[in-house]
Amino acid sequence: MRMGLLGAGRIGRIHGLNVAARADASLVSVGDASPEAAAALAASTGAKTATAEAIISDASIDAILICTPTDTHADLIEAAVSAGKAVFCEKPVDLDADRIRRCLKVVERSGKPLMIGFNRRFDPNFAALESRLRAGDAGAIEIVSVISRDPSPPPVDYVKRSGGLFRDMMIHDFDMARFLLAEEPVEVFALGSALVDPAIGEAGDVDTAAVLMKTASGRIAQISNSRRATYGYDQRIEVHGSKGMLRAGNIHETTVEIATGAGFRADPVQNFFLERYAAAYRAELDAFIAACKGGKAATPSGLDGLKAQILADAATESARTGKPVSVTLGAL
Amino acid sequence: MRMGLLGAGRIGRIHGLNVAARADASLVSVGDASPEAAAALAASTGAKTATAEAIISDASIDAILICTPTDTHADLIEAAVSAGKAVFCEKPVDLDADRIRRCLKVVERSGKPLMIGFNRRFDPNFAALESRLRAGDAGAIEIVSVISRDPSPPPVDYVKRSGGLFRDMMIHDFDMARFLLAEEPVEVFALGSALVDPAIGEAGDVDTAAVLMKTASGRIAQISNSRRATYGYDQRIEVHGSKGMLRAGNIHETTVEIATGAGFRADPVQNFFLERYAAAYRAELDAFIAACKGGKAATPSGLDGLKAQILADAATESARTGKPVSVTLGAL
Amino acid sequence: MRMGLLGAGRIGRIHGLNVAARADASLVSVGDASPEAAAALAASTGAKTATAEAIISDASIDAILICTPTDTHADLIEAAVSAGKAVFCEKPVDLDADRIRRCLKVVERSGKPLMIGFNRRFDPNFAALESRLRAGDAGAIEIVSVISRDPSPPPVDYVKRSGGLFRDMMIHDFDMARFLLAEEPVEVFALGSALVDPAIGEAGDVDTAAVLMKTASGRIAQISNSRRATYGYDQRIEVHGSKGMLRAGNIHETTVEIATGAGFRADPVQNFFLERYAAAYRAELDAFIAACKGGKAATPSGLDGLKAQILADAATESARTGKPVSVTLGAL
Amino acid sequence: MRMGLLGAGRIGRIHGLNVAARADASLVSVGDASPEAAAALAASTGAKTATAEAIISDASIDAILICTPTDTHADLIEAAVSAGKAVFCEKPVDLDADRIRRCLKVVERSGKPLMIGFNRRFDPNFAALESRLRAGDAGAIEIVSVISRDPSPPPVDYVKRSGGLFRDMMIHDFDMARFLLAEEPVEVFALGSALVDPAIGEAGDVDTAAVLMKTASGRIAQISNSRRATYGYDQRIEVHGSKGMLRAGNIHETTVEIATGAGFRADPVQNFFLERYAAAYRAELDAFIAACKGGKAATPSGLDGLKAQILADAATESARTGKPVSVTLGAL
Repeated sequence: MRMGLLGAGRIGRIHGLNVAARADASLVSVGDASPEAAAALAASTGAKTATAEAIISDASIDAILICTPTDTHADLIEAAVSAGKAVFCEKPVDLDADRIRRCLKVVERSGKPLMIGFNRRFDPNFAALESRLRAGDAGAIEIVSVISRDPSPPPVDYVKRSGGLFRDMMIHDFDMARFLLAEEPVEVFALGSALVDPAIGEAGDVDTAAVLMKTASGRIAQISNSRRATYGYDQRIEVHGSKGMLRAGNIHETTVEIATGAGFRADPVQNFFLERYAAAYRAELDAFIAACKGGKAATPSGLDGLKAQILADAATESARTGKPVSVTLGAL
Repeated sequence: MRMGLLGAGRIGRIHGLNVAARADASLVSVGDASPEAAAALAASTGAKTATAEAIISDASIDAILICTPTDTHADLIEAAVSAGKAVFCEKPVDLDADRIRRCLKVVERSGKPLMIGFNRRFDPNFAALESRLRAGDAGAIEIVSVISRDPSPPPVDYVKRSGGLFRDMMIHDFDMARFLLAEEPVEVFALGSALVDPAIGEAGDVDTAAVLMKTASGRIAQISNSRRATYGYDQRIEVHGSKGMLRAGNIHETTVEIATGAGFRADPVQNFFLERYAAAYRAELDAFIAACKGGKAATPSGLDGLKAQILADAATESARTGKPVSVTLGAL
Repeated sequence: MRMGLLGAGRIGRIHGLNVAARADASLVSVGDASPEAAAALAASTGAKTATAEAIISDASIDAILICTPTDTHADLIEAAVSAGKAVFCEKPVDLDADRIRRCLKVVERSGKPLMIGFNRRFDPNFAALESRLRAGDAGAIEIVSVISRDPSPPPVDYVKRSGGLFRDMMIHDFDMARFLLAEEPVEVFALGSALVDPAIGEAGDVDTAAVLMKTASGRIAQISNSRRATYGYDQRIEVHGSKGMLRAGNIHETTVEIATGAGFRADPVQNFFLERYAAAYRAELDAFIAACKGGKAATPSGLDGLKAQILADAATESARTGKPVSVTLGAL
Repeated sequence: MRMGLLGAGRIGRIHGLNVAARADASLVSVGDASPEAAAALAASTGAKTATAEAIISDASIDAILICTPTDTHADLIEAAVSAGKAVFCEKPVDLDADRIRRCLKVVERSGKPLMIGFNRRFDPNFAALESRLRAGDAGAIEIVSVISRDPSPPPVDYVKRSGGLFRDMMIHDFDMARFLLAEEPVEVFALGSALVDPAIGEAGDVDTAAVLMKTASGRIAQISNSRRATYGYDQRIEVHGSKGMLRAGNIHETTVEIATGAGFRADPVQNFFLERYAAAYRAELDAFIAACKGGKAATPSGLDGLKAQILADAATESARTGKPVSVTLGAL
């Protein structure tokens, strides 16, 4: 499988190296607005550099990985699927749900697979939990809890163009909640505060937030986010069900513990997504390649991306208005 | 210190035995609507049996412990403080906030201490967490999380006269949230479902619920409840702050673990409140006796009882209407 | 059941208060070489004070608890059983195995029950582990590991008359190893060093030690001891078997954890035996009273005391000579 | 750095793939007694196949990785260093200490680096523990404990030519004990039994064993091994010191836990060395390449290999004779 990569930043670099390390795929070309970034990744992977246009129109390329800034995603997806490529795109498709809808129509007409980079579904721990949930180990699902806290807040400049915490950060948790609930939420209530960094509040965003959602059958999901956790990248899920409770926790930097008069001290948890989700990124690529080869639908799909975005929009509105917001994802 | 006990049921029995085991207090009289229950506890403690009226008017008694059904609490508190007794009363003072307000006025005029049985504040683990929170170990408080799940639902008959999950069960968590937040909530949003037992739903109540609250400065509290946890009585608190995260977890029945091909298996958590909070009930009595002797205000006070009740009322309304409810506890 | 207590020191006080708190037993008399100590405990328990001789010859007393210094144990046991009393005696019966043998003959002739205070068998965690081991949960026993570390070393004066670490401290672990192995050791190899406090070495003792033992069928036991663990009283057992591994660990002071940039910190483990084994002391008394009432043999018996002493003697000799020592406990 | 690999079995395959994945090294040639095995690994790595002789005499190759059967190690090391290659060799150099000594003289004369594959030193957890030990976090070292248990016993045919458990399996733990003790053992006492598989006993070997060692200053090391742990590959180390206790534990297959009425169940630990030590093998190769490039001595060295072998020989003798065996590693 021959692949082209658009975007050689932090996340593009991960995917590019992961492709290059595979026996069943090769990285052909890398494109980036910064020629230096493209060249550096090309040098590490044996790929050549090219413009996005050249990569998309290269007939020898089977699939495109889109890791560019968010505002380019929808256009690039449309161009790539129209050129007959399978597409993997980092979340989100777009910050505007209507733009996503238009994009997904183009994808649908093309008949090409589109997979969205909700990497957490592929974390071996979370994936194992979900398998056991589907196998019925916890019985009927009642309460889904997702905790997600970044080690430190992004620069305020980033915050300003991010679409806000609910669309930029909690979108992963909306997808995880949907993944675990196995039933669409119908209502979203959100609270948000700027407690970590006043500049984030001045920029009109929040850095601390919590959401409650309910499905039609009464299942409850609770999500909490913080832009700053002093102890590392806090990533936990828990599902309470009729037969029991399933949870998957954090991974500490090492298993070393020291016991002294001050107590027992374990390491902080792994610091951020590059480390915490290294295995998830590899498994995500497995799934994308398997979908491309096997003619299976790619999951999470563009529709999954749209639904997470709608939930993020609803949470944004709820936090602004102070009222719960109804959503109808089932009918999309 | 000479004490009288009204109510020799499950919780009355705990307090009665705890008084009898102390060197600095004695249990003088026990009263119960069931003469057999009163006699049984009297026999175990060396107390005599008497009617509530006789106990309240017994000049040799310094303090009264009220462990009778909820609908008798307010009347008994008023009678006891008016007779010059210090009073410890199990939660809640009443299911009706206005009745609580009238009762607290009587208490205030009497000048006698009234302490409400929010036992969890006295759990050594939760108390230690709160001390460290007050000492600033976690920095500024941002997100308070309380998880409280009972091992199995009560009979539907009990549910019907309980005031509903938010007033009967989550009231403890409202008090715990206030204890940890150190700032009054101003808004309450609640979701509830009957997922555990349809009969609970038919009785107009819920058995699975979650609440979000916000304080004026933007601190967030999230609470979740279930009436059934297959793995024991699930009691966890967690506080996320600017300097770190403090949490206190469950206590397993033993520390024994077995490792086999099926994995590592630890015991369920302690089954219910009599076991889980045995130390808390003793410490609670310590605090009541210390307040009585030292002339200090008893904490949690009648006002704490009223505030938790107001939050429970707000949650009940929110779950019914689907809208957040504003509360103003500071002005009480 | 009416009881007399000889010895009102630290451990005598625990047993005396535990007897006084029971409904099925009463503490009649307390004797101690220090009249003040006896009087203080008598005041806390409602007992009277008396001399050892008076207590032993008091016809109204059914059972005697011996908590005096070690060198008085054998004489007091003999006097008490000869006077028709059931006897509970703190470990060890004597530092000299031959003296123990003579004492046990007197006990045998008397027909009265003698129970030795190996409290750890009654720890709810260790007892649960042993029950599961006997139920076959771990399959055939292969390796038993016992870790026992005190929070801080005793005064050198105490060390000098203690009989040495193997007889004074590790004797508990020899009993625990026998309890778990369910087969008698036939060989003992010991290493000891004075690493914690040079004064202990100058006094001819060790403060850091490890032992290996083997049974006839090839089961292995390993024990390690230190007189100083900065993080609390370290008490762990582990059994490796053909079907799995069973272990029981330490109990932290609280369940509170704090997570910061320095990692996750839990409390030290419970500091010493009074706290760590509070439940064990109560269960031990249950067992003694049940044995007395039921006419069952008291366990651990005087013979268990002798066997642990023989293992401690063998370890002492092995550490001194550098050679393994054979023992034949089965034939006793 | 251009490398040749001798031996394309299970462990050779790991090292070969790790070399091929590096940017700073390439795998030039692979040799194996089985041409198919060599060809398969060559195909996965882009290397060519060649005989051992051809690889050793290939002037373009800088370093040789020896992953062949044990009885070929010493000859191949000698040939390779004599041909001017840096050498990495899997443990052990030889089952005969005298043969190791002769081999190390050849290595010494050659002036080429020789590194022995004690992979566990490079496990990120164990390496972090050792760094903290060296930094003094635990204070003065007193007791080192190493637990090492394989998931299941090897075939009896393998056992027969393995040199016995102490040389084949516990040799890793002898190296780990030396790594942690930071002082040479002077005495070894060993116990061994065939409890897992009677056929292992009939073959003259043991499958369950424990060792005690002491250093000149009195530090104690205890090691226990089993050829079968139902719950996975059990790999734990613990160091008790004057300031505290450092330990590093097992890694579970996932972080998922399920809580039900049967308790809380976590996954088994990672199943065997390929998975458990994947990161260690990569770090080991980092260290070898750094030593080759930097002209630093390779660690663990051939002398480390010899010392571990002498301890394994001493344990074998001790288990056979029932007596402790003195060793003098410092003078080698």
